[in-house]
Amino acid sequence: MLGSTHGTLTTDSRPARVIACGEQPGPAVHGRPAEAGDLDVSGRPLYADVPDLDRFFRPESVAVVGASDAEGRPTTGITRQLISWAERVGARLHPVHPSRPSVFGIPCSPSVAELPEQVDLAVLLVADPLALIGELAEAKVKFAVVFASGFAETGEEGAAVQARLAAAVRRSGMRMLGPNTNLNAFERFRDDLDGPAIALITQSGHQGRPVFTLQELGVRLSHWAPTGNEADLETADFISYFAEQPEVGAIACYVEGLKDGRSFLLAADRAARRKVPVVAVKVGRTETGARTAASHTGKLTGADAVVDAAMRQYGVIRVDGLDELQDTAALLARARPPRADGVVVCSISGGTGAHFADLAAEAGLRLPVLSRAKQAELHQWIPEYLSVANPVDNGGHPVGDWRGRKIIDAILDDPEVGVLICPVTGPFPPLSDRLVQDLVDAAERSDKLVCVVWGSPVGTEPAYREVLLGSSRVATFRTVANCITAVRAHLDHHRFVSGYRSPFDEAPRTASPSFRKAQELMRPGRQLSEHAAKQLLRTYGIRVPREQLVTSAAAAVRAAGLVGYPVVMKASGAQIAHKTELGLVKTGLTSASQVRDAYRELTDIARYEGVALDGVLVCQMVERGVEMVVGITHDELFGPTVTVGLGGVLVEVLRDAAVRVPPFGEEQARTMLAELRGRALLDGVRGRPAADVDALVEVVLRVQRIALELGGDLAELDINPLMVLPRGQGAVALDALVVCS
Amino acid sequence: MLGSTHGTLTTDSRPARVIACGEQPGPAVHGRPAEAGDLDVSGRPLYADVPDLDRFFRPESVAVVGASDAEGRPTTGITRQLISWAERVGARLHPVHPSRPSVFGIPCSPSVAELPEQVDLAVLLVADPLALIGELAEAKVKFAVVFASGFAETGEEGAAVQARLAAAVRRSGMRMLGPNTNLNAFERFRDDLDGPAIALITQSGHQGRPVFTLQELGVRLSHWAPTGNEADLETADFISYFAEQPEVGAIACYVEGLKDGRSFLLAADRAARRKVPVVAVKVGRTETGARTAASHTGKLTGADAVVDAAMRQYGVIRVDGLDELQDTAALLARARPPRADGVVVCSISGGTGAHFADLAAEAGLRLPVLSRAKQAELHQWIPEYLSVANPVDNGGHPVGDWRGRKIIDAILDDPEVGVLICPVTGPFPPLSDRLVQDLVDAAERSDKLVCVVWGSPVGTEPAYREVLLGSSRVATFRTVANCITAVRAHLDHHRFVSGYRSPFDEAPRTASPSFRKAQELMRPGRQLSEHAAKQLLRTYGIRVPREQLVTSAAAAVRAAGLVGYPVVMKASGAQIAHKTELGLVKTGLTSASQVRDAYRELTDIARYEGVALDGVLVCQMVERGVEMVVGITHDELFGPTVTVGLGGVLVEVLRDAAVRVPPFGEEQARTMLAELRGRALLDGVRGRPAADVDALVEVVLRVQRIALELGGDLAELDINPLMVLPRGQGAVALDALVVCS
Repeated sequence: MLGSTHGTLTTDSRPARVIACGEQPGPAVHGRPAEAGDLDVSGRPLYADVPDLDRFFRPESVAVVGASDAEGRPTTGITRQLISWAERVGARLHPVHPSRPSVFGIPCSPSVAELPEQVDLAVLLVADPLALIGELAEAKVKFAVVFASGFAETGEEGAAVQARLAAAVRRSGMRMLGPNTNLNAFERFRDDLDGPAIALITQSGHQGRPVFTLQELGVRLSHWAPTGNEADLETADFISYFAEQPEVGAIACYVEGLKDGRSFLLAADRAARRKVPVVAVKVGRTETGARTAASHTGKLTGADAVVDAAMRQYGVIRVDGLDELQDTAALLARARPPRADGVVVCSISGGTGAHFADLAAEAGLRLPVLSRAKQAELHQWIPEYLSVANPVDNGGHPVGDWRGRKIIDAILDDPEVGVLICPVTGPFPPLSDRLVQDLVDAAERSDKLVCVVWGSPVGTEPAYREVLLGSSRVATFRTVANCITAVRAHLDHHRFVSGYRSPFDEAPRTASPSFRKAQELMRPGRQLSEHAAKQLLRTYGIRVPREQLVTSAAAAVRAAGLVGYPVVMKASGAQIAHKTELGLVKTGLTSASQVRDAYRELTDIARYEGVALDGVLVCQMVERGVEMVVGITHDELFGPTVTVGLGGVLVEVLRDAAVRVPPFGEEQARTMLAELRGRALLDGVRGRPAADVDALVEVVLRVQRIALELGGDLAELDINPLMVLPRGQGAVALDALVVCS
Repeated sequence: MLGSTHGTLTTDSRPARVIACGEQPGPAVHGRPAEAGDLDVSGRPLYADVPDLDRFFRPESVAVVGASDAEGRPTTGITRQLISWAERVGARLHPVHPSRPSVFGIPCSPSVAELPEQVDLAVLLVADPLALIGELAEAKVKFAVVFASGFAETGEEGAAVQARLAAAVRRSGMRMLGPNTNLNAFERFRDDLDGPAIALITQSGHQGRPVFTLQELGVRLSHWAPTGNEADLETADFISYFAEQPEVGAIACYVEGLKDGRSFLLAADRAARRKVPVVAVKVGRTETGARTAASHTGKLTGADAVVDAAMRQYGVIRVDGLDELQDTAALLARARPPRADGVVVCSISGGTGAHFADLAAEAGLRLPVLSRAKQAELHQWIPEYLSVANPVDNGGHPVGDWRGRKIIDAILDDPEVGVLICPVTGPFPPLSDRLVQDLVDAAERSDKLVCVVWGSPVGTEPAYREVLLGSSRVATFRTVANCITAVRAHLDHHRFVSGYRSPFDEAPRTASPSFRKAQELMRPGRQLSEHAAKQLLRTYGIRVPREQLVTSAAAAVRAAGLVGYPVVMKASGAQIAHKTELGLVKTGLTSASQVRDAYRELTDIARYEGVALDGVLVCQMVERGVEMVVGITHDELFGPTVTVGLGGVLVEVLRDAAVRVPPFGEEQARTMLAELRGRALLDGVRGRPAADVDALVEVVLRVQRIALELGGDLAELDINPLMVLPRGQGAVALDALVVCS
């Protein structure tokens, strides 16, 4: 397992229990826009607080505590950089040092208390920042930046010190960046670039360097927040703030560990509402997670799959390499919203076009066949024997003269076309120099996205370095994969935000009447019996079979008569798992004598296996449906999550499941089903009837409601199987496992 | 569907039927090394003919037919390039033109017949090459290169002309490159580079340009074969030839359409025997293939999945983008065989290392934890608080002085380590310049692979351009993904070739006694009845249930008595598919009266549905196994292929199947099972017994034998389900479909 090197503490996301009652369970459609202070039924916030960081990034006055101009001290270099940064942003800078009269000729204050004015920002270059917090608060400093390391990143002891520092900051009302942060926020940004910018957030300064360096290629950067250990200000705060800044076109994040799942999602929600793309590297693909689960659904998805799902729910674009982060963020920051999702590939070689189109289509891009009229138009300049349907093979020669630009313009004029991609496999200056210039000129005059993949491995060619990199309107790539990833992210982002409805607006704020009844069934720290677990489901309107718990063979026969033959009989007890493997389930019993025999056999096996029973369940037998599983698992970062998967024996073998972090709406519940590889089972195969998908969606949403209302008290919940009957007939929870925390 | 732009014809790979009898069916272990002329039981070659292309690439004399020095003619430029190429390789060049006395001052021959000497190579710059073939053959020309286009790439008419050209060349004994090829073979290669080289084969010249351009970055290129339409010489010929050349370290291919599947695999086999890596782009990821299949297995895998599988069987490394082709081929050409498969990631930032290691591990690279002793050694130079377990965080500072080299050498000295990867996120010259120089120096003195990912998007830094690109021992990448892809390919390649046994050596050369019996059952152009299909399987030693075909209720009852209760009854007829959906199967019949009723019901349904019956099958009932499917499908390119997948209703839903192109051995059959997502079903889940995997493997190999012996006459064969019983109890084909072609 790969840990964070920045010591962010994963906090248990269970909030204090604040439940108000009054609503019906079921899909929650509230629709009142969430506001600051609103809490959902689980007591968690529904709205991101946006810290006002204007004075952090543009302070009027700055104190440097522990400033130095002594030769050879690391703080001297930092002080020098802060002075030149303060000059650039027009801030007054005040060194603070107990003994030096001045630093680099600027008069020193002996202490924070003796600063000549109230400062916006204090940069602490001291080893023990904790000792200073009180004094800084007293001086009404708005922001502190703590460079010191040796906190949570070093282990438990450091984490304890960090917790004390965080508590002191919280009490002070001041906001803090760090500890274990650096100078990145105070770097020299290029101010000669315009257009939409990337705002950068990194937990490791070094890992942000390539995105920062994009400025050398003409990509504007507006901010860099090196969040370090995030004892106070965290990635989410900066996402929320950056999403509000007009100059920010995209937010690029490098995340090692999220401090709090909910804050991150609220921030992503804010960015989605503002239509600002968030592109993130989140380390931890191989993180197996610390989940230990008794249920099946609990084992279906690892912690990283939950991160993946949560990001997708809020439209955060997750990428892997830093090169992908650069290429994707740069494109998303600068490209205008697409007019259409059609992608056209155009090249000077049929082979190049076909190859690129193949990979683009494989990745899910839509390459429309151009209309006959458009093809005829292109054939004015392109010989008839070349295919211009898409990919467009211009055959090379037309690119060398006035026809090249005509071709590009004609493609960009097509209303079906949102993106033109031109792979330049090998530079051949007589053609490619003119092609590249035409692309740049056409892109300047069009609001559509033009991309070039520069295929030469050399990369010193003037057409590449001067013409392509000199344009902010053409997105230039060095690899096919990064181009396709970025274009897909661009189209996906705009599709996502244009239909975005915040799930936080629709999340339930008060508990349903089911909640109190359900609470009475809970047994802290214990696993409920199957019977009790099913009662809990029934409380929330989830159908369970008719059943009775009996403690004698005679009672079993009476129960079978009431339930109706055929029946299923199961041993029932608080701690029984894997009943089937132990032989503790008997199905298809059709007569009183079979029921009597089954009762005897079940109690015999239980005795032999040493399993304590509270009785035997006599249940209605439900067949002929599609077996699914639906469950709740507690995720370290995001709290209770809802999983749905294919049931039966295959749940263990194929792990075909989808997971979501509440709150989510009906549409997401349907998307979960669409993500299942075995989805077709629900549609009916080999003449079987289609399953009642609406009822399944309803169960998923009711289980979400349980997660929201009981989440903190539930370690896990597992319906396995949920028998989804043919359309119109509903879904029945045949077995249930509930573990209370 | 994306077509080839180069008009390679997909030939039906069914050879003339040449069957010799005498052997037993079953796993074929022959083990006599295949030799030129050897044929397998299907009449196909077992050995690649390697054309002698020495005089093609290094001719002593060359004729240029249609040479020109007239201003403005395209042939003039080509003639000029050929003259300068001939000078470089030391070949005598003879222009041929009916009317010009000389070209560029070189005396012209008026015709091929009047050439002053017998030439090795004739380059034809004429529009109608077909007219010249006879004359060239007469003059004993060894090789012709045909530039003319307008052949198969233009459609059916051109394909017909190309077929005539190919036939003429075949009769002539001469070998031909093209038509629709170009000058790439005669380019100016850098001759100042040494070490192992890349040999390049491309169907589109333009698409080979980036690999050719690698020479500008110091990567040696030895050959370039632009195969064009492949009317004669094809990609496979060049692979076979290049695999024999001592200077070739890796073969890079760009393939739009393969001419013949078998030739390609024989060539790949030769390269695998010679331990020469083949890296290939094969266009057609989105090719849905032209398969129309009645069987389930036939629909399980598309044409591209077969290409994928075939390449993997012979160790061909398939990549997607041209940038991946460059990066992977360059690494494989130059890296020495790995001493170990352990990968160590080392960087100047813990964040960088953890991030890279996460992605590398996710991609399947093995990152061993370094031994305590090695960690202690590294801590001599790296502060104790930094983790050096792997990834190694050197903390930055040691890299700036003599310690940097010590750290690198210590890692490379570890016997567990085969590869050191050093991601340089952002250049910081005081550290990174020295780091990069140390890596280059260490790599020069080590036989282990050292890789650098240069993370700066700029790429003009001297450390990158001069130091890293100046070294042939350090593999330098610009993206994380390409580095990981190339390193994995390197380790996979050496693992593959070190254990490689050619399946062609072990392929059966003569037919089994089963063959004649099976032939009698075949009905050309028709689908066999279930009963006949099962007889065919039994002929090849595949177990089927006891069963009898009956035509009356009374006979059914007698048959049930012989077969043994409980029985299954099925309608039987030559063209019945999807029996279950039609209600034409009755299972679990336990008495004579049930059998009589079932007989009546089945014949009633058949009458109602208008299905012609040849009777009703009364079969032994087999339960309690794992249902699988095994089948044969005819692939356009590779001929009969064998598929194995998960059976039951899930075969349609999950398409969980693996495919192989015969011949393949037992190990590959086992690997097929390992590739199944639902593999765990065979191991036994939820207390079910493990299935008889050995018996399943045996069935797969026997089905392969059917494919080899009857392949050409079989459109498809499908065992669905094959019931695999608990370990030691075998496997039984419960239903079978055979369609003769």
